[in-house]
Amino acid sequence: MKDARSTLQKLTEIALRRYGMIEPGDRILLAVSGGKDSSCLAWDLATKQQWWDVPFELGACHIATDLDSAGLGAAYDDSWLAARMAAWNIPYSRLEVPVAGRLKPGERMNCYWCATQRRTELMKFAQAHGYNKLALGHHMDDILETLFMNMLRKGEFATMPPVMRYEKYPLTVIRPLALCEERQVLACAEELELVSHTCTCGFNTHGARKQTRKLIETLTGGSSHAKRNLFASMSRIRHDYLA
Amino acid sequence: MKDARSTLQKLTEIALRRYGMIEPGDRILLAVSGGKDSSCLAWDLATKQQWWDVPFELGACHIATDLDSAGLGAAYDDSWLAARMAAWNIPYSRLEVPVAGRLKPGERMNCYWCATQRRTELMKFAQAHGYNKLALGHHMDDILETLFMNMLRKGEFATMPPVMRYEKYPLTVIRPLALCEERQVLACAEELELVSHTCTCGFNTHGARKQTRKLIETLTGGSSHAKRNLFASMSRIRHDYLA
Repeated sequence: MKDARSTLQKLTEIALRRYGMIEPGDRILLAVSGGKDSSCLAWDLATKQQWWDVPFELGACHIATDLDSAGLGAAYDDSWLAARMAAWNIPYSRLEVPVAGRLKPGERMNCYWCATQRRTELMKFAQAHGYNKLALGHHMDDILETLFMNMLRKGEFATMPPVMRYEKYPLTVIRPLALCEERQVLACAEELELVSHTCTCGFNTHGARKQTRKLIETLTGGSSHAKRNLFASMSRIRHDYLA
Repeated sequence: MKDARSTLQKLTEIALRRYGMIEPGDRILLAVSGGKDSSCLAWDLATKQQWWDVPFELGACHIATDLDSAGLGAAYDDSWLAARMAAWNIPYSRLEVPVAGRLKPGERMNCYWCATQRRTELMKFAQAHGYNKLALGHHMDDILETLFMNMLRKGEFATMPPVMRYEKYPLTVIRPLALCEERQVLACAEELELVSHTCTCGFNTHGARKQTRKLIETLTGGSSHAKRNLFASMSRIRHDYLA
């Protein structure tokens, strides 16, 4: 039985087609942390590359930071991740970004700062190496968490979209796992033995996100149907029936 | 101190103006159940009628059903409600609607059926008596509950809007309490001694709504700020950042 991987493959195919994520000749850069989400995504896209109806190229980039438990510089060992990408024929690069080191005096570390620094480096790398798409491993639960954080904290109905075209850069962000629940990604990672037990973030406070995750579990009663309804509500907005 | 009533008066004024709820010459029919919400609304609109910058007329209609603990027909005593409306100079009518009696054999009573029957009678009454607006006592918590029920159960971002124009009827529904939280309406009702301890619904299972109310309390941690952000997200929809 290869249930979990086949579920993930189908859900990413639906997302890729529904949102028009892959266009002929695309050069797609995958952001790989080494965690279960981006690993499953890398495996899935490498597999799809072999039979997908339009040709596309893949590359993977790992951002190492000074928050990683593995450290930076010579001490840092990403040979396992490099080997994994090599096994899937995905060209692999590693960038070192001193996220904490870039803080100005008096500034405190936070997830927003770190994410922005990493994203900027990925975008620079993509452009410098001729990639026109950046694929990120965010799944449905990530997207719903951001939706609720924005609703509750910013009063906005907005989240990380499956496809986002930058206006200023010739780059489009895609999130092919948008229709996969985290439990489905986890099941696939377990089936493929891609679960890494090293936490890549040494800062790791994500308090608001963790709390929001619990709230969504409560809201949906853990029901996938309810969760998928929440997701669907983003594309079924009835303007005449809103405040 | 008249804090609670003054808060409610300000919030309804903001809603009336923001959503353009009152137009010159409007004849507004209030649906009054006798409960705290519609009673506060009737009191507020009767007060505003005296100083509002454009003239409008008011009337109140109470729907008595065979689900009411008070029953129907001669046994039903609404003299207290009639007296309350008379004190505020609001012409008052009572309609009797056998909501349960209208069920076809084999059909079970439910909140949707009851609400539809009552709404239809109110609309017929409004049209027959020359009213062009129907004012309902739904507050912000009611609106958020419906929003979440629709998101979770129907996969739609939709709720009961502050203003809804019917296409088929020359009638507009308005919800002037849309910006008032339930706790604010309750405080006003207590201050004005309008709290009725008789439950008007003998069926009263509202299971899904009660459950959703609890979920929203959990989601917002009881914070008014978070609740108002949820409400604001309905008018700040960022289409580029949605799935």
